[in-house]
Amino acid sequence: MAGFVDSTPGLPVLEIPGIRLATVEAGIRYRDRPDLALFELAAGSETAALFTRNAFCAAPVQIARAHLAAAKPRYLLVNAGNANAGTGAAGRQAALACCEALARQAGVATEQVLPFSTGVIGEHLPAARITAALPRLLAELAPGAWPNAAQAIMTTDTRPKSAFVEIDGARIAAIAKGAGMIRPDMATMLAFVCTDASLSAAETDALLREQVGQSFNRITVDGDTSTNDACALTATGAAGPLRGRQRAQFREALGEVFRNLAQAIIRDAEGASKFITVRVSEGKTTGECLQVAYAVAQSPLVKTACFASDPNWGRVLAAVGRAGLADLELAKLHILLGGKLVVANGEPAPGYSEQAGLAAMAGTDIEIAICLGRGACEESVWTSDLSHEYIRINAEYRT
Amino acid sequence: MAGFVDSTPGLPVLEIPGIRLATVEAGIRYRDRPDLALFELAAGSETAALFTRNAFCAAPVQIARAHLAAAKPRYLLVNAGNANAGTGAAGRQAALACCEALARQAGVATEQVLPFSTGVIGEHLPAARITAALPRLLAELAPGAWPNAAQAIMTTDTRPKSAFVEIDGARIAAIAKGAGMIRPDMATMLAFVCTDASLSAAETDALLREQVGQSFNRITVDGDTSTNDACALTATGAAGPLRGRQRAQFREALGEVFRNLAQAIIRDAEGASKFITVRVSEGKTTGECLQVAYAVAQSPLVKTACFASDPNWGRVLAAVGRAGLADLELAKLHILLGGKLVVANGEPAPGYSEQAGLAAMAGTDIEIAICLGRGACEESVWTSDLSHEYIRINAEYRT
Repeated sequence: MAGFVDSTPGLPVLEIPGIRLATVEAGIRYRDRPDLALFELAAGSETAALFTRNAFCAAPVQIARAHLAAAKPRYLLVNAGNANAGTGAAGRQAALACCEALARQAGVATEQVLPFSTGVIGEHLPAARITAALPRLLAELAPGAWPNAAQAIMTTDTRPKSAFVEIDGARIAAIAKGAGMIRPDMATMLAFVCTDASLSAAETDALLREQVGQSFNRITVDGDTSTNDACALTATGAAGPLRGRQRAQFREALGEVFRNLAQAIIRDAEGASKFITVRVSEGKTTGECLQVAYAVAQSPLVKTACFASDPNWGRVLAAVGRAGLADLELAKLHILLGGKLVVANGEPAPGYSEQAGLAAMAGTDIEIAICLGRGACEESVWTSDLSHEYIRINAEYRT
Repeated sequence: MAGFVDSTPGLPVLEIPGIRLATVEAGIRYRDRPDLALFELAAGSETAALFTRNAFCAAPVQIARAHLAAAKPRYLLVNAGNANAGTGAAGRQAALACCEALARQAGVATEQVLPFSTGVIGEHLPAARITAALPRLLAELAPGAWPNAAQAIMTTDTRPKSAFVEIDGARIAAIAKGAGMIRPDMATMLAFVCTDASLSAAETDALLREQVGQSFNRITVDGDTSTNDACALTATGAAGPLRGRQRAQFREALGEVFRNLAQAIIRDAEGASKFITVRVSEGKTTGECLQVAYAVAQSPLVKTACFASDPNWGRVLAAVGRAGLADLELAKLHILLGGKLVVANGEPAPGYSEQAGLAAMAGTDIEIAICLGRGACEESVWTSDLSHEYIRINAEYRT
């Protein structure tokens, strides 16, 4: 794989033949920053999308689902600052009005526009400000505007999140936003991934599901699921079909892009000072490994201990014990912090010292490994610590 | 019902005929405070107990379960500062050694002693300090030592928790401890309830299960379940059997004692500045009402908004939507804050003002009411807010 780059300033941005982007300051909520982004997808592009599992999905999610089922998308319209959720029929009308205005000006069907919103829940979308900005957006479409788009979709994010990769035969470019209300039921907030590879509709859909399962569905910040989460994968086909070994390389590169973005969300999680990997091995099933991993990753006591760099393995042990697995045997449990054996067969490991535990917790990256001793399955999830800054952000700002 | 009193200093303490208590400074972890309590139960007393559902229950829980199945308890031995959890075979031996020493000195069978521990997980119990303190404990047994016992079992609690009530024909006295690692799978940390009513073993057990279900199993602080939770109900029978209307009055009074203690735990929850009632009505089943109530009560975003006195109903709406109920209709959802209609039929209620929402959130007690519009069931749970102080307590101290 050549040229994998993230959003570090100064690194090159890959353009994806068939994709153009633009951003504008529409004044939806923020001032002096772009808050509206537009993706133009070449005719013939295949797009698949996954949406939040929250029962109260926002108006744009309802519209986007319906449009995606009816037509091949040509435009993705994304605003930050207002989620257009909990806004009822008026909210759906506002989202639809934006799609209609864009479709009219761009000369496509309304169903070929997918709307996405992120921001405050329960406030009415200022659709007029969005429709007023559309001529500027359309006029400024350009293939290199990925960094602008990554900026325009931010809410409580402290930095833009993007990933670019080029392999033999294809390119992939992607942006994401998300920092809070993150849990593994489509925990992206928003992510848009584009490639110039030629993929069928079925391939696009299958690849998206596979990759989201291994990335955005493996992260948690606070266990809350947004009403607006969405992830879209578009294949323009401009580079032609993948041949032979290129297919496997493409899948691997796509996986790296999705993981990179998912981990970037955790590293930028609200108030995060630690990046925590919870790895559960020796489970009977993948499902039970995840069940234990999330019980640990979502435990406020474990997360607070990580914030304090405290090797408080008793809290990990208690969280594993309450994960709800039947017949879990404490005598077979091992816990490792940063690769150091802390609990062996359910008891403090001989030779473990508090000193070693402190060293394992001192850095920014913490690995908590749990061996259940009852099977051959293994799963990892990623989470952040629970800090004063998390409280400050979520108490002081309405997000 | 006459004379319901809580632990407010200066109010009378009820003595329960057949119950004597004592406390001592055993130096288990804390200095200059009692940390070991003993209950003596008159011969013939019936005792029922419920224990944590954590799969990794602590050594004293394992021993207490076995002893309770084998004999009628005569002594409850409770230490604070060390949970004796994650301590393996040595931990079980230490708990058993304490029971054996007490049984020998008191002239009862070892199985008639139930051990209880609360405190740090994963450190070995200093059994010798406990056994050394037993002669003093036995010498000081007295019927009025309830306030001392309430003090002795505290860990991160900032105040002792007790409740006393006298009705026609019976008295009830109770103490509890708990402030963190609280969730509704036997979320008491520890509670001991005694009455002089005469109850059969079956009645004692049934009453305990009923009352715990409506009190300790209706509270959550952080969603974590301790390895050591336990609640015991003892009926000495000294006052003889309840007759006629006394039975219903007793059940009602017992309910008030359990609710009082459960709510006292929430009011003293780690870092709590708010007491939050989440009431879910118009559900199809009790189970789905609780499912929604806990999704809201355990949401870090809802809890942080409560800390900030912010009427951020969008976070409540998002939490209800992710609770996992099938076919939930947003158009039938109502949300009330402090009795004020905020969301009507899934949209901002006509006439709702931010001013009214702020007023509803301003006090110490916050009521979040959610109407699902799909049935006739109703349930309430109680929780606390998520504050800077919670982070400080759990980051700075190892609990």
